[in-house]
Parts: sequence; structure tokens; C-alpha cells
Amino acid sequence: MFTEHLKAIMDGVDGAIACSVMGFDGISVETLPKDLPESAVELDLQAAWVEFANLMSQAKAAAETLKTGKVAEVSINSEKVITLLRMVNQDYFLVLGLLPTGNYGKARYVMRITAPRVAKEL
Amino acid sequence: MFTEHLKAIMDGVDGAIACSVMGFDGISVETLPKDLPESAVELDLQAAWVEFANLMSQAKAAAETLKTGKVAEVSINSEKVITLLRMVNQDYFLVLGLLPTGNYGKARYVMRITAPRVAKEL
Repeated sequence: MFTEHLKAIMDGVDGAIACSVMGFDGISVETLPKDLPESAVELDLQAAWVEFANLMSQAKAAAETLKTGKVAEVSINSEKVITLLRMVNQDYFLVLGLLPTGNYGKARYVMRITAPRVAKEL
Repeated sequence: MFTEHLKAIMDGVDGAIACSVMGFDGISVETLPKDLPESAVELDLQAAWVEFANLMSQAKAAAETLKTGKVAEVSINSEKVITLLRMVNQDYFLVLGLLPTGNYGKARYVMRITAPRVAKEL
């Protein structure tokens, strides 16, 4: 059921490497593609996502004491990959690994419209 | 000397609220505007930046054990403000608070070209 939403992200975004519905405990509920491409394996995206899940969890917690409001999206741009994280609900988020040459604007847009659809299924 | 670079960011980006050169210890080297606008005071941007400096510091440290490469940019988008953080060097970064309706693409561009100019002055 999450698969179609993740597929919509992968198909809609040029340069998308892999995407996932993850819990803030760093455990993936569903990841696409099933067989990660070589680029994702080389970059060890899953290890990165566990770290970034931890950071997003802290950003979420920090936001409760800050006046800037709830955190909706975090983006971490490193040399070899852009990582977009989008809040789904209190417990889950969407994460997308994107090539630095990928379509970042489209990625943000597609993640924004997909998050509420995923939320309905949780 | 940092002022002109910060001014270039503020002038170049629609929706910019305030920007700063900060150390990873959370201490601001220089912030513009000198008299923070009411929006920045209401949102308590300085408190948010200290928290986000801490997160960026952790992202930088995590990157050393990850295969995704050095972190160049982090963006934390919350309900009331978009925060863009751009690495300057090992010790310092640029931070910009932007209205959610502000020009995010332009902000990323201006931060990217300004960071190396600030680095030369440090």
C-alpha cells in the first residue's frame, strides 16, 4: 500500500536513488526500489538514513521548545547525495535520496503532496 | 567585513528575516540586521539557531562515518520560518531565516556563492 506512493515519488523525480517510509526509531517500513541500485549500496544510504532519522527526531523535539513552529521538512545536502526528509506524522516520515544533479524542486513538491497520502494509510 | 556579505544575502533574497555568520558553538560572529525585525524577535530566531547549530554540528560529525560525503547545506523548514544553514569551513557556517513565502531557490543560490567569500575573511 505504501509502495504506490513511494513509486510515485521515484517516478516523478529525476535523479531519485531510493525512498522510504521510516519510523523515528530508524526502522524502514517500506523502501523502494526493492533491489537498491548500486549507487545506493555504494553510498550506504540506509546507514545515512538511520543517522538522519535521529537528527530529524531531535529537530522535532527541539521545535517543541522553539517558537518557529513544527518541523515539516529537513534537507541535508552532502557531496554525493541530497537527502530530503518530510514529516508524515508524529512517528513516521518520508525520506528520499537524490543525486546532487537531480530535480530538487520537484522532489520537494512530490514529497509534500505524498506525505498526507501516506499519513492516511498509517 | 562580514557585514557586506550578510547584506548581499539580505538584499538578494525576498522574504529574508535575518542572517548570521555563526560558529558551531552556537555563538554568532555577526548578525544582520543589527536591530532584528519584530518577526525575528517573535520567532526567537536566535534560540532556534543555537539549536540548529547543534544539529548541523551533529550532521557534520555523522558525515565523517557515512559514505554520503561532507555536509554542505542543511535546511529545516518549520511552520513559521525556513532556516537555511550553509557550511563555511570546519568551524563556521552561514544561517538565514526566511519567511515560508520567501524565495527559497534564490536563498540557496545566494548562500552557496556567499559562503566561499565569507571563508576568505575568516
